[in-house]
Amino acid sequence: MDLQLKPLSRFCYESIVRETLREDLGRGFDLTTDAIIPPTARCTARIISRAEGVLAGVEVANSVFSFLSSEITVSAENMDGASIGSGETISRIEGPAHAVLSGERTALNLLGHLSGVASLTQRFVEQVAETQAKVVCTRKTTPMLRVLEKYAVRCGGGMNHRFGLDDGVLIKENHIAVAGGISKALELARASVGHTVLIEVEVEELSQLEEAVTGGADAVLLDNMDSITLRRGVELVEGRVVTEASGGITLANVAEVAETGVDLISVGALTHSAPALDLSLLAEDLS
Amino acid sequence: MDLQLKPLSRFCYESIVRETLREDLGRGFDLTTDAIIPPTARCTARIISRAEGVLAGVEVANSVFSFLSSEITVSAENMDGASIGSGETISRIEGPAHAVLSGERTALNLLGHLSGVASLTQRFVEQVAETQAKVVCTRKTTPMLRVLEKYAVRCGGGMNHRFGLDDGVLIKENHIAVAGGISKALELARASVGHTVLIEVEVEELSQLEEAVTGGADAVLLDNMDSITLRRGVELVEGRVVTEASGGITLANVAEVAETGVDLISVGALTHSAPALDLSLLAEDLS
Amino acid sequence: MDLQLKPLSRFCYESIVRETLREDLGRGFDLTTDAIIPPTARCTARIISRAEGVLAGVEVANSVFSFLSSEITVSAENMDGASIGSGETISRIEGPAHAVLSGERTALNLLGHLSGVASLTQRFVEQVAETQAKVVCTRKTTPMLRVLEKYAVRCGGGMNHRFGLDDGVLIKENHIAVAGGISKALELARASVGHTVLIEVEVEELSQLEEAVTGGADAVLLDNMDSITLRRGVELVEGRVVTEASGGITLANVAEVAETGVDLISVGALTHSAPALDLSLLAEDLS
Amino acid sequence: MDLQLKPLSRFCYESIVRETLREDLGRGFDLTTDAIIPPTARCTARIISRAEGVLAGVEVANSVFSFLSSEITVSAENMDGASIGSGETISRIEGPAHAVLSGERTALNLLGHLSGVASLTQRFVEQVAETQAKVVCTRKTTPMLRVLEKYAVRCGGGMNHRFGLDDGVLIKENHIAVAGGISKALELARASVGHTVLIEVEVEELSQLEEAVTGGADAVLLDNMDSITLRRGVELVEGRVVTEASGGITLANVAEVAETGVDLISVGALTHSAPALDLSLLAEDLS
Amino acid sequence: MDLQLKPLSRFCYESIVRETLREDLGRGFDLTTDAIIPPTARCTARIISRAEGVLAGVEVANSVFSFLSSEITVSAENMDGASIGSGETISRIEGPAHAVLSGERTALNLLGHLSGVASLTQRFVEQVAETQAKVVCTRKTTPMLRVLEKYAVRCGGGMNHRFGLDDGVLIKENHIAVAGGISKALELARASVGHTVLIEVEVEELSQLEEAVTGGADAVLLDNMDSITLRRGVELVEGRVVTEASGGITLANVAEVAETGVDLISVGALTHSAPALDLSLLAEDLS
Amino acid sequence: MDLQLKPLSRFCYESIVRETLREDLGRGFDLTTDAIIPPTARCTARIISRAEGVLAGVEVANSVFSFLSSEITVSAENMDGASIGSGETISRIEGPAHAVLSGERTALNLLGHLSGVASLTQRFVEQVAETQAKVVCTRKTTPMLRVLEKYAVRCGGGMNHRFGLDDGVLIKENHIAVAGGISKALELARASVGHTVLIEVEVEELSQLEEAVTGGADAVLLDNMDSITLRRGVELVEGRVVTEASGGITLANVAEVAETGVDLISVGALTHSAPALDLSLLAEDLS
Repeated sequence: MDLQLKPLSRFCYESIVRETLREDLGRGFDLTTDAIIPPTARCTARIISRAEGVLAGVEVANSVFSFLSSEITVSAENMDGASIGSGETISRIEGPAHAVLSGERTALNLLGHLSGVASLTQRFVEQVAETQAKVVCTRKTTPMLRVLEKYAVRCGGGMNHRFGLDDGVLIKENHIAVAGGISKALELARASVGHTVLIEVEVEELSQLEEAVTGGADAVLLDNMDSITLRRGVELVEGRVVTEASGGITLANVAEVAETGVDLISVGALTHSAPALDLSLLAEDLS
Repeated sequence: MDLQLKPLSRFCYESIVRETLREDLGRGFDLTTDAIIPPTARCTARIISRAEGVLAGVEVANSVFSFLSSEITVSAENMDGASIGSGETISRIEGPAHAVLSGERTALNLLGHLSGVASLTQRFVEQVAETQAKVVCTRKTTPMLRVLEKYAVRCGGGMNHRFGLDDGVLIKENHIAVAGGISKALELARASVGHTVLIEVEVEELSQLEEAVTGGADAVLLDNMDSITLRRGVELVEGRVVTEASGGITLANVAEVAETGVDLISVGALTHSAPALDLSLLAEDLS
Repeated sequence: MDLQLKPLSRFCYESIVRETLREDLGRGFDLTTDAIIPPTARCTARIISRAEGVLAGVEVANSVFSFLSSEITVSAENMDGASIGSGETISRIEGPAHAVLSGERTALNLLGHLSGVASLTQRFVEQVAETQAKVVCTRKTTPMLRVLEKYAVRCGGGMNHRFGLDDGVLIKENHIAVAGGISKALELARASVGHTVLIEVEVEELSQLEEAVTGGADAVLLDNMDSITLRRGVELVEGRVVTEASGGITLANVAEVAETGVDLISVGALTHSAPALDLSLLAEDLS
Repeated sequence: MDLQLKPLSRFCYESIVRETLREDLGRGFDLTTDAIIPPTARCTARIISRAEGVLAGVEVANSVFSFLSSEITVSAENMDGASIGSGETISRIEGPAHAVLSGERTALNLLGHLSGVASLTQRFVEQVAETQAKVVCTRKTTPMLRVLEKYAVRCGGGMNHRFGLDDGVLIKENHIAVAGGISKALELARASVGHTVLIEVEVEELSQLEEAVTGGADAVLLDNMDSITLRRGVELVEGRVVTEASGGITLANVAEVAETGVDLISVGALTHSAPALDLSLLAEDLS
Repeated sequence: MDLQLKPLSRFCYESIVRETLREDLGRGFDLTTDAIIPPTARCTARIISRAEGVLAGVEVANSVFSFLSSEITVSAENMDGASIGSGETISRIEGPAHAVLSGERTALNLLGHLSGVASLTQRFVEQVAETQAKVVCTRKTTPMLRVLEKYAVRCGGGMNHRFGLDDGVLIKENHIAVAGGISKALELARASVGHTVLIEVEVEELSQLEEAVTGGADAVLLDNMDSITLRRGVELVEGRVVTEASGGITLANVAEVAETGVDLISVGALTHSAPALDLSLLAEDLS
Repeated sequence: MDLQLKPLSRFCYESIVRETLREDLGRGFDLTTDAIIPPTARCTARIISRAEGVLAGVEVANSVFSFLSSEITVSAENMDGASIGSGETISRIEGPAHAVLSGERTALNLLGHLSGVASLTQRFVEQVAETQAKVVCTRKTTPMLRVLEKYAVRCGGGMNHRFGLDDGVLIKENHIAVAGGISKALELARASVGHTVLIEVEVEELSQLEEAVTGGADAVLLDNMDSITLRRGVELVEGRVVTEASGGITLANVAEVAETGVDLISVGALTHSAPALDLSLLAEDLS
C-alpha cells in the first residue's frame, strides 16, 4: 500500500495553504499575539495526535509556518500514510513564537481534516483486505479540497476515481435516456473523446449490463444493488471490464460487498463525512 | 431563531462557487455531457433531501447553475434555516440540460456540506433550548470555508465566535506565560487594540478567574472544566463578564454544561466533523 | 466529423479573452480611439477571411466585444469547423464604434491563431481520409493556449491526445530506464493510478513491443519509425492495443504513415507551427 | 545588434511561466513520473537545438525548473540573440529527476516558440542589412505572449512598434473618416494626449501624405503600397517624419521594400506565423 | 478643456472598485445593516458636495453600487470635469437600502479622493491660464491609483506625463553619470527603444542644454531652476524641443514659472498631496 | 506610544507592494535604465527625508527592492514611529543599480504617503497630549490602502477604529430611523452579532444619549457637537460607556474637544487628506 503513495507536489497545495492562512489572518494580523508576544520571542513546539488514525497532509500543514517566517524549521516525525496513536508526536517546530502561534490553527485544521479522510478510508480498506476489491473515492468532496482529499484517500490505502468532469467519461441514467440507450450513448462518447479517456457506464439493472460491455464500456458502475445482484453482475461481466459497486456502502456492509467479486467499491462518505482527526500543538519552550 | 438569520451577501460566496465549479470542470468541460447531450436539450429538475436536517447554502448552491448558463432559472422551495424531512424538495431548476447536469455535483457538494453543519448545530442547540446558554462555533473550520460554515452555524441556530485572528483578542495559556501573568497580558492587549475589539481570556483554573475579570477581560473562556467546576466559575464571575465553556463538549454532555449557567458553549465539531446532509438532484424532464 | 464537434464552454476561454484584451489595452485605454471617435459613434462591421481555411474560435473572438460594451451585438455567419473561402464573411458586428475599434485586433488575433491551427489540421486529416488513421495533437502547444488549440484541432477534424501530465500516463525512454524495463514501469504505473487512467508506452524499437502489450499497456507509441517498421509494428500488435505513430510526420509523408495501419498519427506542428489565418475587420458604416 | 539587446526582467515572464506550467500539470501532478521515478532520483540533462536558428527565451525556459524544485541548477551555454546550429547545446540542467522530467515540455514549448519568432525575424533583418531600414513587429501577436514575442523580435535584430493601444497613437482609415480628415484627426489626437506620446498616421494614398506631415504627425505608415509608390512617398516626406512600410511584406520582397528608403518595415508574420524552433531535452545521466 | 476629456473605460477602474469595496466589507458583510435593515427596504439618496471643487470619478463611484445590487439605479447630475459648489447634488441613487448603505463609504472615498486631485489641479491650471504653459502630473502618485489619478488630473484641466517606466524615456542625473554624458546616454536610448517612444532629458544646469537638444532629445526637463534661469533656458532651446519645468512648484509661484515660456510645468503635489473633496450621501427616503 | 507599535506582517503589504511596482513597470520594464545602465552596474544609495515628520512604512518601502533583485540589501537607520528631521537618512541601500533605480519611485511613493499620514496624526496627538483623549482614525481612507493607513495612524500615536463594515457595529441615523428608535436598533444588533462584536451608536442630540447607554451600547459617537454640548454629553454618560467625538475636528480645535473629557476623537483627515512627506533617494556611488 505504501508502495504507491507518492509525495504531493507543492503545486497541489501551495495556494490552498496561502488561502487558508489568509482566511484566518483576515486583514493580515493576529491581534493577540501582536499585542502580547515580543517580536523576538522564540518557541519550540510539537504537533501531537489526540486520537488514533492515519496521517495525511503532514507536509501541507508544516508548510503553513514557512508562509509566516523564513526562520522557522519544521521536521516531521511521522509521514503521510503512517498509522498513529493518541499522544504521538507528528511534527516538531522551532522558530519565532509569532509564526508558531499565528500558524497553529491553520496547520491543525488542514492536517486534521485530511487525516480524518485518510483515517476513515483506512477503516474501509481494512474491511476488504482479504478480498481483491479496492476502495475508491468519488466526486462527493469538500468544496475546493478535492485534490488534497483524493490524496488523503491514497494515504489511507484507497484508490482514486476520476478527478472531475473533464478527465473521464461516466455515462449515467440521464445521459442514457437522452442518447436513447446505452449503445448509442457509448457510440457518441467514443466518437467524441480521445483514446486516452476511459469510458464507464452506470447500470441500474443487470439487464443493461451486456449492452454496456459489448457496446465498448471500459468499466461498469453497478449502482445501488444488493450483494446477490452484485455477485450476479460480476459473473455476467466475466472479467471483460472493470466492475464498480456504488451506493449505500457503509463500514458495516463493505466487506459483504467486496466478497461479491467487484473490482472497485466507491464510497462518498470518505470525503464528505469524515470527522477530523483530533490534534494539538504543544508549545514546549517559549521565551 | 429565524429572526437573526440574515441573508448572505454574494461577496461571501461568489468566488467560492466559481472555484468549486472550476475544480470539477478542470480544464473547462464535462466530457460525458458534451459527448452525449445535445446543446439544445432542456431539463427540469429538483434538488431533494434524502435525510432529515436543517438547510444552509440554498442560494449558494443555486447560484452554481447561473455560472454555467444565463438561461437557467432556479427557485428555492425551502430556505436556509428551514428544517427539512427526507424526500422534500429544496429547489426547482429549469433550463439547458448541459448546465443542469454539469452543475449538479458542485451544487450538491456545497449544499450538503453546509446543511450538514447547520443540522449538527441544530441538534446541539436543541439540547440547550431550556437554558440561557448559546451554542457558538470556533476557528476549527474546514479550510477556505470559514465564512460559509459560520453562516451555516447561524442557520442551525448557533452564534458565531470571532472570525479570525484579526477581529478579536483571545488570550491563551502561551500568551499568559510570555506576558508573565493574566493582568500583564490584559494590560498589553488593551494598550494595543482599538476600542472596538473585545478581549477574552482563556482560564485553565478557577484561581485565575478573578485576575481575568478585574484585569479588564470582556469575556472568559473556561477551558476543559467539568460541570461542577464550571458552575463554580459562573458563580465567581457573578455576571460581570461573559462566560464561555469549551473543550470536550458532545451531544451527550452539552445539556449538562448549559445548566451550569455559562453564557456560551463553543463546539469545534460543528464545523470540523459534521457529516454532509444526503441530497439528490432528480432530472424530471429531459429532452 | 462535424458530429463530434462540441461547443466550447465559456469556462475554457473567458479568462483568456480578458487577459488578451488587457494585454492590448495595457493601462486600460485606446489612445487613438479615445481621442478621435465620439463616445456616441456607432459602427457596423464584418470580420472576413483573406484566405482559405477552417474556422476555430468564432465565438471566442466574438466574445471580445462583449467585454468592451454590453450594447454590442455580434452574429456568426460561419461556425467553428466550417471551411471558408477568401473574402467570405465570418461575423457581423453592430454597436458602439469604440468597442468595435478597440476590440478589433484582439478578436482577429484569437480567431486567426485558432483558425490557423484548425486549417493546418484539416490539411493533415485530408491526407489520411482514405485510411482508418486519425490525426491527433500533442503537448507541443503554444504557452497558455493548450485547451483552445486542442479544440481547434477538433475543429479541423483531428482528435486530442492527453491534455497534460495529470490526465494520462505516457511512459517514455527515461521512465523505462529508471524503472529497469517496460514491464516494471507498467507495473509501477498500474499500481499507482486509478482505473480511469489510460497507460501508453513509447517504444523506440519493435523488440520492445511485445513486452509493452503483454505488460498491460493500453496503447503504444511507435516513435520515429519508418513506414516499413511501422507496418511491422502494427502486425505484431495484432489489434490488441491502440497504436500511435509519432515523430517527423509532415504533410508529405502522413498518407504513407497512415497506410501502415496505425490507429493514430500525432503531429506536433498542428499546434506549434501553424501560420495564422489571414483575417480583416471591415467597418462598413461608422457614424 | 547585440548592443541593444537588454535582459528581460522577471516581471515580464514570471506569471507566464507559472501559468504555462500549471496548464501542463493540470490538477498539479505528473502521473507518469510520480508513478515511476523515485523522489530521490537525480538527473543531468541538456537542452539542444535540432535546427538552425536564433535563440530567444533561454532564461525564461530555464526558470521553469526553479518553479518545480529549489535544488535544480540550470546554466545557459548560449544566450538570447545567439545564432545556433543544429545539435548545439543551449542549456545544461542538473537536479532532481522529477523536476527535470515534469518541466521538460513546458520549457521546450516556451523556448521553441520564442526562438521561432527570433529566427524568422533574423531572416527578415538579414534581407535588409544593406539598407537603413529596420524591421519592426506589429500588434498581430499570439494571445497573451505579446511582451515576450516583442522581446524575441529584438533578439532577432528587429525593433518594436507600440506595445498596445495605450502607449502610442496610430490614426487609421476609420479614425480619419469619423474625424473628417487627417488634419482634424491629428488635431484631436494632439489635444488629447500628453507630450510623451508619439502620433503616427496610416495613409492609403500619397495624396494624403502632405496633410499628415504638415498636420503634425511624428510618423507615417504607408499601407499596402508597391515599391514605386513607396519610393515616391519617401521622397515627398523628405525626412521630415519617420516613414513606415506595411502590408504584404514577405521574405521575397522585403529587400526591395527596404531599398525604397523607408525607415521602418513592419511585418505581422514575425509574431503570428513563425514556426517553432525544433528543440530536445536529452537526459544524460539519470539515477 | 472639456474637449479633451474622454470617458474612462471600465477596464481602468473595475478591479479597483471591487478591491476597495472588498476592503471595506472584509469577510463580506456589513454587520450593522445586516442586523437592522430589512432585506426588502428601499432607499432614495443623493451624493452631495460639502465644498467647492472639480469632480473626477463620478462614474467610478457610482459603479460601486452595482457591485452590491443589480437593482440599483444611479444617475449623475454632474459629470467629471464639472466645477461644483457646496451643497450641490452630484448623483441620485435609488434601490435596495442594503446596497446604498453598504456602498456609501466606498463610493465617497473614491469620489472624494479623485475630485480632490482634480480640484487641486484646476487651481494650478487657473494660475497659468494666461500663458501657453500646461500643468502636468508626475509619477509621484498614490500607490495603486495612478491611472485614476492621471485621469483626475485631466478632469482638472491638466495634462499627463508618462504613465510609468515602460512608456517613455526620462534620462536623469544618474543615467547620465553612468553613461558618461548626455550625448552618450541619448545615443544608447535611441538605439534601444522603438520609434514610438519619446526621449526626455533632465538637465540640472543650462550648460547641459545644448548637448541634450542636439543629441536628439525630444524634450528637456529643467529641474529646480529659478525663473530667471528657466527663461534663459527657454531662449536657448529656441523651440527646438519641448521644455518642462519641475521642482518646487507651488500655487504661489506657478504663474511666475509659466511666464518664463516653458511648455510644461510638472507638479507632484497634484497627486501626492491633494486633500479629499468633502462629500456626503444623504438618504432621503428609506423604507 | 512606542509601546503599542507592533511590526506589520508581510501579509498586510506584500501584494500592495507588488501591485504598486507593477503599476510603475507597466508591461514589465524600465526603458531608460534598461537602455543606459549596464546590467552589472552597482549602486549605493540613501533614502533621506526632505522635511520633518514621523515615519511609517520603512519596511514596506524597503521591501520594494527585494521584488526587483535578490542581491539587494536595505538597512533601516530609522524605524516606523520615529520622528525625523529634514536631511536625515532613513534607509541605506546597496546592490544592482537596475533594481535601485527602477524601484526608487515606488519605494518613495509608499513611504511618503504613509509617513504623511503618521506625521499628520502625530500633530493631532500632540495637541491632546495633556488630556485623556485618544485620537482615532475613521473609514475615510484612501482606496485599497486602509490597512496600511491604519498602521500609519498607530505609528503617529493614534488608535484605530473598526477596520470595516464586518468587524464592528456602528449604528447611524439611517439605521435608527428604519429600526424605529435606538433601543430597537440596539436590540436587533445584539440579537444578530456574536459576543466578540462591540456595538457603538451615533447620536445627533444629547436627548438620545440615555437610550443608547441603557439600551446596551458599548460606545456612543457624539456627532458634530460643539464643546459645550460634548462636555454635557460626557457628564450624562458618567463613564458607563466609551464616548467618541466626531465631525469637524481640526488641528485648531482638537485640544478644546479633548478637554471636554471624551475618550476618543475621530479625525477623517488623518487618512484622506494628509500631504505626503517629502523624500529623496540619493545615489551615492554608482558604477
